[in-house]
Amino acid sequence: MDIKEVIVREEILGSNKKIAAEIRSRLESEGILTVNFLSSPGAGKTSLLERLADVMKSNHRMAVIEGDIETDRDAERIRKKGIPAWQITTGGACHLEARMVARLIPEIPAETKFLFIENVGNLVCPASYDLGESLRCVLLSLPEGDDKPKKYPKAFATADCLIFTKADLLPVLPFDLRRAEQEALEINPRLRVFLTSALRGGGIAELARYFIERRVNMIQRRHA
Amino acid sequence: MDIKEVIVREEILGSNKKIAAEIRSRLESEGILTVNFLSSPGAGKTSLLERLADVMKSNHRMAVIEGDIETDRDAERIRKKGIPAWQITTGGACHLEARMVARLIPEIPAETKFLFIENVGNLVCPASYDLGESLRCVLLSLPEGDDKPKKYPKAFATADCLIFTKADLLPVLPFDLRRAEQEALEINPRLRVFLTSALRGGGIAELARYFIERRVNMIQRRHA
Repeated sequence: MDIKEVIVREEILGSNKKIAAEIRSRLESEGILTVNFLSSPGAGKTSLLERLADVMKSNHRMAVIEGDIETDRDAERIRKKGIPAWQITTGGACHLEARMVARLIPEIPAETKFLFIENVGNLVCPASYDLGESLRCVLLSLPEGDDKPKKYPKAFATADCLIFTKADLLPVLPFDLRRAEQEALEINPRLRVFLTSALRGGGIAELARYFIERRVNMIQRRHA
Repeated sequence: MDIKEVIVREEILGSNKKIAAEIRSRLESEGILTVNFLSSPGAGKTSLLERLADVMKSNHRMAVIEGDIETDRDAERIRKKGIPAWQITTGGACHLEARMVARLIPEIPAETKFLFIENVGNLVCPASYDLGESLRCVLLSLPEGDDKPKKYPKAFATADCLIFTKADLLPVLPFDLRRAEQEALEINPRLRVFLTSALRGGGIAELARYFIERRVNMIQRRHA
């Protein structure tokens, strides 16, 4: 990167950070836990959200913001679950930014308890952009390979939780779960790790429980 | 994007384009077909190169440039096949640039016929950066899902060939090969399509034949 590029990038990140802090403060004060999902394309973010909706929606009001380069396919899938969902298409940009999320906040229904943001499918760019989330989760699908954490360290370093997806494929893949987990924990020892299968439903209830607990903690922290 | 960002980006892309054109002209004049591989993280670029090496290296001298955010794992894997390989670690950037490739050109051994460039695992950013390749291939691994072409259209629009990978997983995945192919061809009707499995070896010989033919065409075109 040349100096001009670095300066412009720092300005953008600085202004993004400020907007993100405002979003976080506002959503947390309204009792909304916001979760930012990061992953490669096709790691199963939307399928995971569909399964979480099955488990959570009856007791915990959810809303979803979908980020994609093009198409509103993912928001449509979520709406079919009866969950309010908004699609942001970036038209080329490889990540969401806080100002895109800020614009949608007035639309979030009252009583919403969980706002899930599905970032653009990309294991690199989204890691640099705080969206005002209270919790960041990185998804790693087993077919991507167990060598990914150290190749894409920032996504793992900045996350609170690591969700392995497509666990149903473990028997047919050369994937060393221990290696991948260990590598991720070397980058970030405070990661909470989950193993899930959206196809079979494995691990979804545990993950939902984690989000519910984190929301309770968030509210207690704010009232302490 | 704000105006300043757009201007800086256009300057970078303009200078990248110029360097790329110089690289292409130089490598083609030396009889080297350069292939730029684009895909999501973990779509199997390195495994595909390992299999291509098995099929091609005895008759066709190869060299490989590996792009990653961090680690030189992929170059190490290729070197184990007896192929000269250089690792570029971008340290955060989500794509390779032509100037990074240009620096390595003096190191490419004489008699090299094929230079494969494995871009950073990312289905977005690399699509905007010409590296001076003669041929661009986008890989889509079956576990990523059949809805990806229209969600990441630029990678498919700018490629010459589409390589489906991990075909061995087709029996256990909800992947509609016809749908994915049709969607990709709607974006770019001139795509040549291949179905491969690095694990089982399927489709590798056909792909190698395609590269060899394309090199012959390139040389004939230059001498016409």
